[in-house]
Amino acid sequence: MSCVLCESDGGLVVARTPQFRVVRVTDGDEARRFPAFYRLIWATHAAEFSDLSDTDRHACMDAVTEIERVLRSLLAPTKVNIASLGNVVPHLHWHVIARFDWDSHFPAPVWAGAQRDEVAGGAAARLALPLEAADAAVAQALTC
Amino acid sequence: MSCVLCESDGGLVVARTPQFRVVRVTDGDEARRFPAFYRLIWATHAAEFSDLSDTDRHACMDAVTEIERVLRSLLAPTKVNIASLGNVVPHLHWHVIARFDWDSHFPAPVWAGAQRDEVAGGAAARLALPLEAADAAVAQALTC
Repeated sequence: MSCVLCESDGGLVVARTPQFRVVRVTDGDEARRFPAFYRLIWATHAAEFSDLSDTDRHACMDAVTEIERVLRSLLAPTKVNIASLGNVVPHLHWHVIARFDWDSHFPAPVWAGAQRDEVAGGAAARLALPLEAADAAVAQALTC
Repeated sequence: MSCVLCESDGGLVVARTPQFRVVRVTDGDEARRFPAFYRLIWATHAAEFSDLSDTDRHACMDAVTEIERVLRSLLAPTKVNIASLGNVVPHLHWHVIARFDWDSHFPAPVWAGAQRDEVAGGAAARLALPLEAADAAVAQALTC
């Protein structure tokens, strides 16, 4: 069966290890509304988190935690949201999203309805530093 | 600061350990639409997953994984959804939700809009076994 995350990167790759890659979402409404939106995508095809071995699960969540720590440290979000859904693409991936009390949907989940107008010109401009700096810090945290 | 998950159970408690409790969501639209909807709620107040020690993080996700395994084994869901959001209640809790291709929102997240009518009489009746049996299996997996 064809799987889009087996066949393509699924975003801007900011880090890659033998076990997983981390991408930043760079297109569509999500990227404009929630610019610090990263996904950890498991390298091999697995549908559910519990399909991984214990060792792999721990490594996976250690990496998710590192991404969260970088986002907290650099961007001081109001909250970090972490989720593994995969209803549309059942290839294990974790969303790690920096949320801000000024973003278009806060405090609703990013998948719910908007609570207010989007930031004019894109939310990225309101972040404490350019996304490329966050990308670099995520890459350094996961591959050094 | 007052915290609803410090002050109340937040659902029907099915398991409790010194580190966390697991509740099943039993009221509101969520329970009617997504009956096998569990939450692991960390016992002590922590806002973000990365606030936990490494040992606690691993124990937390080991337990989340056990819940997922029970749901897969007993209910054969189309997909399991796992998420830690906490924008409204920033006290660490993990949603673990059995999703079915016939549920009102699938494949959309439970927080998005409905895709079809709800199951008449409540979705619980379509599950392979009563929720009390799933509760008991979750409790056994986490406390035995």
